[in-house]
Amino acid sequence: MLTVNALAAPSATDALVRTTVQRRDLGPRDILIEIAYAGICHSDIHTVRGDWGPVPYPLTVGHEIVGRVAEAGAEVTRHAVGDRVGVGCMVNSCRECDNCKAGYEQYCTNGNTGTYASVDRDGTVTQGGYSTHIVVDEDFVLRVPESIPYEAAAPLLCAGITTYSPLAHWKAGPGRKVAVVGMGGLGHMGVKIAAAMGAEVTVLSQTLGKKDDGLRFGAQHYYATGDPATFEALANTFDLIVNTVSAPVDMAAYLGLLRLDGTLVSVGAPPEPLPVQVFSLFGNRRSFAGSSIGGIAETQEMLDFCAEQGIAPEVEVIEADAVNEAYERVLKSDVRYRFVIDIASLR
Amino acid sequence: MLTVNALAAPSATDALVRTTVQRRDLGPRDILIEIAYAGICHSDIHTVRGDWGPVPYPLTVGHEIVGRVAEAGAEVTRHAVGDRVGVGCMVNSCRECDNCKAGYEQYCTNGNTGTYASVDRDGTVTQGGYSTHIVVDEDFVLRVPESIPYEAAAPLLCAGITTYSPLAHWKAGPGRKVAVVGMGGLGHMGVKIAAAMGAEVTVLSQTLGKKDDGLRFGAQHYYATGDPATFEALANTFDLIVNTVSAPVDMAAYLGLLRLDGTLVSVGAPPEPLPVQVFSLFGNRRSFAGSSIGGIAETQEMLDFCAEQGIAPEVEVIEADAVNEAYERVLKSDVRYRFVIDIASLR
Repeated sequence: MLTVNALAAPSATDALVRTTVQRRDLGPRDILIEIAYAGICHSDIHTVRGDWGPVPYPLTVGHEIVGRVAEAGAEVTRHAVGDRVGVGCMVNSCRECDNCKAGYEQYCTNGNTGTYASVDRDGTVTQGGYSTHIVVDEDFVLRVPESIPYEAAAPLLCAGITTYSPLAHWKAGPGRKVAVVGMGGLGHMGVKIAAAMGAEVTVLSQTLGKKDDGLRFGAQHYYATGDPATFEALANTFDLIVNTVSAPVDMAAYLGLLRLDGTLVSVGAPPEPLPVQVFSLFGNRRSFAGSSIGGIAETQEMLDFCAEQGIAPEVEVIEADAVNEAYERVLKSDVRYRFVIDIASLR
Repeated sequence: MLTVNALAAPSATDALVRTTVQRRDLGPRDILIEIAYAGICHSDIHTVRGDWGPVPYPLTVGHEIVGRVAEAGAEVTRHAVGDRVGVGCMVNSCRECDNCKAGYEQYCTNGNTGTYASVDRDGTVTQGGYSTHIVVDEDFVLRVPESIPYEAAAPLLCAGITTYSPLAHWKAGPGRKVAVVGMGGLGHMGVKIAAAMGAEVTVLSQTLGKKDDGLRFGAQHYYATGDPATFEALANTFDLIVNTVSAPVDMAAYLGLLRLDGTLVSVGAPPEPLPVQVFSLFGNRRSFAGSSIGGIAETQEMLDFCAEQGIAPEVEVIEADAVNEAYERVLKSDVRYRFVIDIASLR
């Protein structure tokens, strides 16, 4: 067992503190990663605070992880010592169900193993990336192209793939009108990726406060959802709306923006159910869908796509001891656009 | 103007009574249809009772209409006197929007004209098919193949197309697992059509009371939704679920039955919104969609498909004066599977 430095939440209400976590001894197909950066995802905060149900404490979160291979098990073939690699929201799955076999490990019928707060196949509770090292099966370790700025790469492992996957699945591309709801950590990557795919991108944000950024990231249009006129002006417009906002939204208003056969896909989820008027779906044969991160192969495809296209998250790098202050700022949407912890400050 | 016999609701609470309605003089592209049979759709009852909002009274409903062409306007080319024809849920649309031009008149951006209780393009209020005659623009009149039993054909114009359209759009066919929720007027046609398309069909009904019928109509499996074990046994199973039930259902339970990329499409709608837990959509990248009848070309395709496949609704033919009793029986789900009014009894 390896004891490594980490940040952990002692309870649902305490601030994160410096501590240590145990990492398992390297199995033959395991990779030991020396972590360089870990992104702060809104999900981390929901999880440590128990918003999505009870979790085991102390808990180290973090599922946007980049670093270098420090050691590789005897049978590892996919990665070598020194490689720049990443880990996202899952570190294992059953590998036997139809979904796993088809490359959709995120939809593992037996449940994928989350990077933190999950019970792994060996019975231990997983601990995430706010830590100096992590041990992960090589099949769940991604190659992170060197051309992506190191400090900006981590958020691709969650914010990047969470928006890339639905954009790819519902065919964002030339001739397609795509709206991204919310200009936070996920939303700003959704804009960059959808624009890089060739879609005509509209941002729907509460205010016009981030309009300049949105246009710089590749959006062609930017509307304030606080203005009711937006919903009239854009009625029956979009082929695809990617909703990155976790707070409840007026579903009838947003569904009304979809044109024939349009889909509103939510990648963030409020804990409470959303009231959906079925009549809102009848018009234009609309769909309301969900999408969860991406499979391992698709995550690799996303990293390679971002490298080729020269796109990366906008980040604010912080020291480990600033994590609690960063959490407060995330909760106030006061970040442009993702906090990344410089893990060197944890050593 | 032509004055013709009809059944009409004097108010939201009164029983239907015999009366007369006015039909417009034949325009150059109009068809005068002598109606033979009119189906009773649950929507008729919702509409006359004001469940879906205020409507003008007196009101004649009925949007499952078959009969013969009695007279054709001077410029009519699509139908000839004596042809067996049908009219469904709409009698006009703007014909100029993208949806109309693409053959999706049901999703007309400017609003299609319903067969009853709509304001037509000429400013008059439309009156439906519980009547001896109707005048309809030839573009909204369908050919009804002679091989379909005459008294059974009418329900195809709503119950048939409402289930055919989503089954065709979401690709029911060989290798696809399709569930039909509800074994009423729509559901029993959904089963017949999905089976004829080659899908593996499962009926999900409150009880097993209609199981023999379901299997006879082509279903391979039949489960009671009143039994919680059904939802465990069928988790992650279906590519497509067509929900024909207008009453609210437990969305999380039904969404859980969808496999990867599965869609639950509602063709009936409760007036109140349905609470949808977004987490239910995340697993398996599920979609919740709506579908409304079908376009004119697709309705013709459905009629031709049913004729080729030798499938037709199961009907109980009634006299005009039995309509109020039939309404009560529809509300109690006491009909196998569609009432059809013999319009000869109205002459």
